[in-house]
Amino acid sequence: MIKGIFFDLDDTLYDSSSFVDIARREAIKSMIDAGLKTTEEEAYKILQKIIKDKGSNYGRHFDDLVKAVMGYYDPKIICMGIITYHNVKFALLRPYPDTIKTLIELKKMGLKLGVITDGITIKQWEKLIRLGIHPFFDVVVTSEEYGLGKPHLEFFEYGLKRMGLKAEEVVYVGDRVDRDIEPARELGMVTIRILKGKYKGMEGDSDYTVTKLPEIVSILKSLIK
Amino acid sequence: MIKGIFFDLDDTLYDSSSFVDIARREAIKSMIDAGLKTTEEEAYKILQKIIKDKGSNYGRHFDDLVKAVMGYYDPKIICMGIITYHNVKFALLRPYPDTIKTLIELKKMGLKLGVITDGITIKQWEKLIRLGIHPFFDVVVTSEEYGLGKPHLEFFEYGLKRMGLKAEEVVYVGDRVDRDIEPARELGMVTIRILKGKYKGMEGDSDYTVTKLPEIVSILKSLIK
Repeated sequence: MIKGIFFDLDDTLYDSSSFVDIARREAIKSMIDAGLKTTEEEAYKILQKIIKDKGSNYGRHFDDLVKAVMGYYDPKIICMGIITYHNVKFALLRPYPDTIKTLIELKKMGLKLGVITDGITIKQWEKLIRLGIHPFFDVVVTSEEYGLGKPHLEFFEYGLKRMGLKAEEVVYVGDRVDRDIEPARELGMVTIRILKGKYKGMEGDSDYTVTKLPEIVSILKSLIK
Repeated sequence: MIKGIFFDLDDTLYDSSSFVDIARREAIKSMIDAGLKTTEEEAYKILQKIIKDKGSNYGRHFDDLVKAVMGYYDPKIICMGIITYHNVKFALLRPYPDTIKTLIELKKMGLKLGVITDGITIKQWEKLIRLGIHPFFDVVVTSEEYGLGKPHLEFFEYGLKRMGLKAEEVVYVGDRVDRDIEPARELGMVTIRILKGKYKGMEGDSDYTVTKLPEIVSILKSLIK
């Protein structure tokens, strides 16, 4: 009997990939305006490499970019980048058009809702709050809070424990085969893959595949009855 | 011959004390809405004590407040506080009514302008940028960047070196007798104290005293001719 549903956050409940890219490009433009001596394309390439090497949750991408280009840390240029990045990010941050409707439908079915997400606790909560969807969730767990991230099975088990349900009582919805769907399947959750974001072309199996969030409502209805 | 002028930032170029207090009180209200089990007044007292014990640049005031009240770190409540604090702060952040006019007058006199400020580099730059006054300043130095803060004389000397001027060629404008005026005087700068913010009642001597920023323009004119 399905009693709960866990979601991944980024690219599953809102469009993360495209707004982050826009915010990074606008940040680079304002850093160049503030004196960063390079071209937009060159700065973008360097930034991509820094993000790849240090991970997306490393806190000093723009510091390293300025150091790489200028040979020293220029606080004005770094700060210009950070402020522009945040301004653009917050301006563009919004749920998928059907996210809230879908969450309401799932709540009406009496399901417990949760989020299992990699990332820094305060940043992931900030997204949920600014998206306006945090009141829907009974449980939110982050990799920083637990100490281990996806695809570690213990992290998903921690989420289950916090929700008070067994794996077979839970549906998991996420965009990444390798970090979301495979570990959730291995534990025995019912998995729904959403084809969104930059990993939508990745090969792999899931119990269900959807292209839009509202499609999961009918899947859940069929699983419950 | 006076060639430059250094300013303190908080409470000298904009009203820091009152907006920080409003932002903290609004943050507490939203934390209580999010489940913090205490009263506004009690939470405010605990927060004041944390700020006094850990300093205003400690990064985890709200974490400690939630821990003190609840016995554990609740990320939703902490994040609600942080987001409300920042939203209110940025909404209220603006220069004193005459700050920009005054800076324009000083620029017209051919003076170099600088900021010597205690605090975290990125936070102080963020204030300058959001206040819209950063393009006026030739030099900005922060205690974090230098490694030592006010009232250490070396920190003020670092600012002078960065501006390329001697102490006797520079006027210093600040609100605090103990951390701004006394060290600047000791080095031989001309000092102007501005009676703003929570330290305006403090006893002490300065070369000049003003109640509003535009008053420094005529002082500078008399010093230069």
